Amino acid sequence: MPPDPFFAGPGLDRADHLRADPVAILALLCDGEARELVWDNGAPAIDEQGKLRWGPIVGDPPLFLGFDGPSPRFSSLPDGNAPIDARAHFQLLSQLDAAEAPTFAAALSLANWHRRHGYCSVCGTVTDPNRGGWSRKCGNCGAEHYPRVDPVVIMLAEHDGRLLLGRQPHYPPGRYSALAGFVEPGESIEDAVAREIKEEAGIAVVNVTYLCSQPWPFPSSLMVGAHAEALDDSLTIDTNELDDARWFSREEVVAALDGGPAASFQAPPHSAIARTLLERWVDGLK
Amino acid sequence: MPPDPFFAGPGLDRADHLRADPVAILALLCDGEARELVWDNGAPAIDEQGKLRWGPIVGDPPLFLGFDGPSPRFSSLPDGNAPIDARAHFQLLSQLDAAEAPTFAAALSLANWHRRHGYCSVCGTVTDPNRGGWSRKCGNCGAEHYPRVDPVVIMLAEHDGRLLLGRQPHYPPGRYSALAGFVEPGESIEDAVAREIKEEAGIAVVNVTYLCSQPWPFPSSLMVGAHAEALDDSLTIDTNELDDARWFSREEVVAALDGGPAASFQAPPHSAIARTLLERWVDGLK
Repeated sequence: MPPDPFFAGPGLDRADHLRADPVAILALLCDGEARELVWDNGAPAIDEQGKLRWGPIVGDPPLFLGFDGPSPRFSSLPDGNAPIDARAHFQLLSQLDAAEAPTFAAALSLANWHRRHGYCSVCGTVTDPNRGGWSRKCGNCGAEHYPRVDPVVIMLAEHDGRLLLGRQPHYPPGRYSALAGFVEPGESIEDAVAREIKEEAGIAVVNVTYLCSQPWPFPSSLMVGAHAEALDDSLTIDTNELDDARWFSREEVVAALDGGPAASFQAPPHSAIARTLLERWVDGLK
Repeated sequence: MPPDPFFAGPGLDRADHLRADPVAILALLCDGEARELVWDNGAPAIDEQGKLRWGPIVGDPPLFLGFDGPSPRFSSLPDGNAPIDARAHFQLLSQLDAAEAPTFAAALSLANWHRRHGYCSVCGTVTDPNRGGWSRKCGNCGAEHYPRVDPVVIMLAEHDGRLLLGRQPHYPPGRYSALAGFVEPGESIEDAVAREIKEEAGIAVVNVTYLCSQPWPFPSSLMVGAHAEALDDSLTIDTNELDDARWFSREEVVAALDGGPAASFQAPPHSAIARTLLERWVDGLK
């Protein structure tokens, strides 16, 4: 069986029950085992072995990320004025040990959410970190705001043994990947899969099945991987969303995953759940 | 096969491609077939047949919900100062035709999101509806904000042929239902299922499998239904979250779904995905 998607996995023990207890969190900050995440250019710093870098506690870091064994783990908020360079952060993934990826994802998503949620959406007042950094609270109207997790469906539509893959304008040359889009209010996962394939490629699908999921911290998506059966293969491509979309045979997908000179397209990178979906399809697991 | 979860289904044609075209939306507002959703006490109004009530266009409703056949459908934002009475809205579901439920969910989630997102979270400035009401835009810093969809895992943990169900403090007397909790940043669906069961009931699970999903507009959840295998049945209940949690046999679940005098607990209502999960489990579909 192919590996689980990158970024999936248990990560730290989040010790959720401590978040509402500021005295307990303060005590953990003073624990000799406590460590603080090191940031570099707006992302968690990675050492030469692909591990996250941790240092001594400096000041009063507002994010309590959880425990690594007995060691409490904290993070400051990186400089709020630096632009978020998602492309540079994405490049880091090739250096990151998969076992560290869930913690990288949690810290980066949480930090980016804090950067863009300093004000109360209900009344416009400045808010403060709360619950060990897992929410923000408004001192004016009392509203409590929680980090966003935005579900995105990403799916393989299949017809007559071939898969539908598309190219977004920002992809590297030759890259094709699974179609994807945000789940909207009032939609199930299955409804969102059908709507997105209809919108982007003009085809109707049935029998949507779930495959696997992955957090994706650019900035805060939950990628929900699925498979669907297309009722026909006649494409009407939404050129606002896609440069191109095509049907690929099993042999073409195998060659692309192998990455050799016979490949007719460039497969998504190892960190992307789209690649996991293709690997599972090739393995016959759909 | 049991029915799909309430609130799941196609609903209106959302015509997403028109949202970025304010001239097209204005033309649709002047279309003789255009209709506007009627609101009652902060929720979409329901007629005696369980259908949503629609009236003529009044003024300039900011939400473009999509098409019902050739008829463009719009909504105003209900009075922003009235408190949201989620409990009263929930009571409406017993009167609502299932075919209308996806549109009810989309309109209610979207309206409630607008009510609580009048200010820019980045800079604190008042924002305006944008993209036919499917986003809000800040005129000061330029940030665009999209409606929240908050993924929640809801799951049946099974051990030795019995299911783990719990009672939240606000449940009606005798009610037990599936454990549930929000997916957090940096988590896959499978990771969230395992963490929530561990936190609330103290047991470890393996082999998490997805079952079905449902939008839940109180205010904006995406319920993700799952099954998991518990490694043991020795419970440590988090009494901050749950009044109680117990293991129930197949016979007890069948009796509760039947609702007769033999039931040892009260099953969740028809609108809740938790009931769909129980129905599917009983049917052996897991």
